[in-house]
Amino acid sequence: MAMTLGDPAGIGPWVAARAAESASLRRRARPVLVGDAGALKHLVRRRDLTVKPLASLDDYEDRPGVVNVLHVPHPGIRSLRAGAPQKVGGESAVLALRAAVGLALSGRVAAVVTGPVSKASLRLARVPHPGHTEFLAAMCGVKNVEMVMAAGDRRALLVTRHLPLRQVASSLTVEKIVSAVLRVDAWAGRSLGLRRKPRWALCGLNPHAGDNGLLGSEEKRIIAPAAAALRRRGVLLNGPLPADAAWAKHAAGATDLVACLYHDQGMIPLKTLDGRRLVNITVGLPFVRTSPGHGTAFDIAAGPNPDRHADAEPTLEAGRVALNLAERGSR
Amino acid sequence: MAMTLGDPAGIGPWVAARAAESASLRRRARPVLVGDAGALKHLVRRRDLTVKPLASLDDYEDRPGVVNVLHVPHPGIRSLRAGAPQKVGGESAVLALRAAVGLALSGRVAAVVTGPVSKASLRLARVPHPGHTEFLAAMCGVKNVEMVMAAGDRRALLVTRHLPLRQVASSLTVEKIVSAVLRVDAWAGRSLGLRRKPRWALCGLNPHAGDNGLLGSEEKRIIAPAAAALRRRGVLLNGPLPADAAWAKHAAGATDLVACLYHDQGMIPLKTLDGRRLVNITVGLPFVRTSPGHGTAFDIAAGPNPDRHADAEPTLEAGRVALNLAERGSR
Repeated sequence: MAMTLGDPAGIGPWVAARAAESASLRRRARPVLVGDAGALKHLVRRRDLTVKPLASLDDYEDRPGVVNVLHVPHPGIRSLRAGAPQKVGGESAVLALRAAVGLALSGRVAAVVTGPVSKASLRLARVPHPGHTEFLAAMCGVKNVEMVMAAGDRRALLVTRHLPLRQVASSLTVEKIVSAVLRVDAWAGRSLGLRRKPRWALCGLNPHAGDNGLLGSEEKRIIAPAAAALRRRGVLLNGPLPADAAWAKHAAGATDLVACLYHDQGMIPLKTLDGRRLVNITVGLPFVRTSPGHGTAFDIAAGPNPDRHADAEPTLEAGRVALNLAERGSR
Repeated sequence: MAMTLGDPAGIGPWVAARAAESASLRRRARPVLVGDAGALKHLVRRRDLTVKPLASLDDYEDRPGVVNVLHVPHPGIRSLRAGAPQKVGGESAVLALRAAVGLALSGRVAAVVTGPVSKASLRLARVPHPGHTEFLAAMCGVKNVEMVMAAGDRRALLVTRHLPLRQVASSLTVEKIVSAVLRVDAWAGRSLGLRRKPRWALCGLNPHAGDNGLLGSEEKRIIAPAAAALRRRGVLLNGPLPADAAWAKHAAGATDLVACLYHDQGMIPLKTLDGRRLVNITVGLPFVRTSPGHGTAFDIAAGPNPDRHADAEPTLEAGRVALNLAERGSR
């Protein structure tokens, strides 16, 4: 399993190293970090840990306390300043990502866990994509991917992703909702180990799901027709429901997935319920890809003791989820 | 304490009656229902309960098992059909509300708990207000009121309320955010029993609070200037924060209130965390007003056994919160 360091100026290297050396992941997989080993050596000062840079996966050393890193060098890494967006950080993250994608496409790894990247660093590195998800799709030549956020059994499909709120309503179409839910429904059926058809809630866009048209027309024009089309295609889906009611029921276990129409409609309840276990899953790539649900945490990386303050649990959970998916033959 | 029946075709009468007879409220107050007693008699079939219609509060009978109802008759109540929006329901709810407001303004009750109303019924009754909150403000001749939703120690101020999502971004102004937070900050300081200045989180509007302008400009143009103005006025406020991060921290107890820019930004996490204790508080009226955080639940009211399926806990909690506020001399 490949684990990229993400932006080396953030907490990615810290948490990836700790996850890779954990017994819970090493029991199930041979984790290999991917990134500039110099950045990692520089960061990991613990005596019980050996960072082993690899030129190739063939040199992998499967031993407790050894953190294997497929070394993807960047000449500027020595000048890296911890805790700030910068071009070197973005470029190094991209190099690591490309290397990890190469390993996955060639079948050398069963899954890829990506470390957090900074949108600002990526922009300085002239990456034209709004985020990891879209960038990975482009690297793999895949047109449509979907973003599922999971915290244990709580899962949100984000029908729109990194979009200013003011653009959400006009960007919704019946086709977009239908294709996203269909794709994730098929994936969920074979990947989540549910032993039954996935049960969905589809959120409305407006307060009270539009209150029968009094508070917005998108439910009647777009969301209800999409729901009807999905039910005709055999999807077990309720909705459009008021988003607050859909989430209250989902939190109580009544459904397996919530289809959310905008970023925060899914992210707010998931982080509120269980932010430490939040995992980002990309559906539609030719391989399993997950990521911890947090960002670079530059503030912690720039602080006095990142190794103590950076939480590796989300990365561990991203690794566990990736292995669950890989073991079920999912993509 | 006055408790209106709300729309008599919904579950309001059921849950109000059960709350009013509960020992936990009767220990602290003398609850009186307000509405058409005929609607209530019709609904309450339990033998251990006596519904006592009152012409005036002077006839109040303070005895276990007696539910006192200030009788506000509506001639059409006999034709009422349970479980559907209709003109009679809206009109009866309005009559009860007016009566309760009269009791509060004249000092005969210390607080008002309002039962759920139906926007559709109110519309059939030609009420020009989008909801309870605005209607109460108009009845009291108050220009600006604020809506706070609380579930125990989790509290959201909704800066905008019942607005289609597509209108939210353009309806935000620095002035609107500043005046809402200032009003609720002053209220919270004297009403919540915190023994310190209230600690606030102010949410951003866009994903990642706009990600430094990459995902929307409202944070830079409107929300950050409002936050700065509020801090200059002495408000203990962090923000604009990504809404998901603000809620994760609030759920962990780091703040006392979250200022939310749209309905579902506050309602989704509160219902997800603790929907049964959700209470709507109106800040800025000349008296204490709370309401359970749910709607009329016409589906339950039309069903076979509303007394069993309608949950009185949110109404009880609304009563408890109202009494807490009244005892602290809040309004």
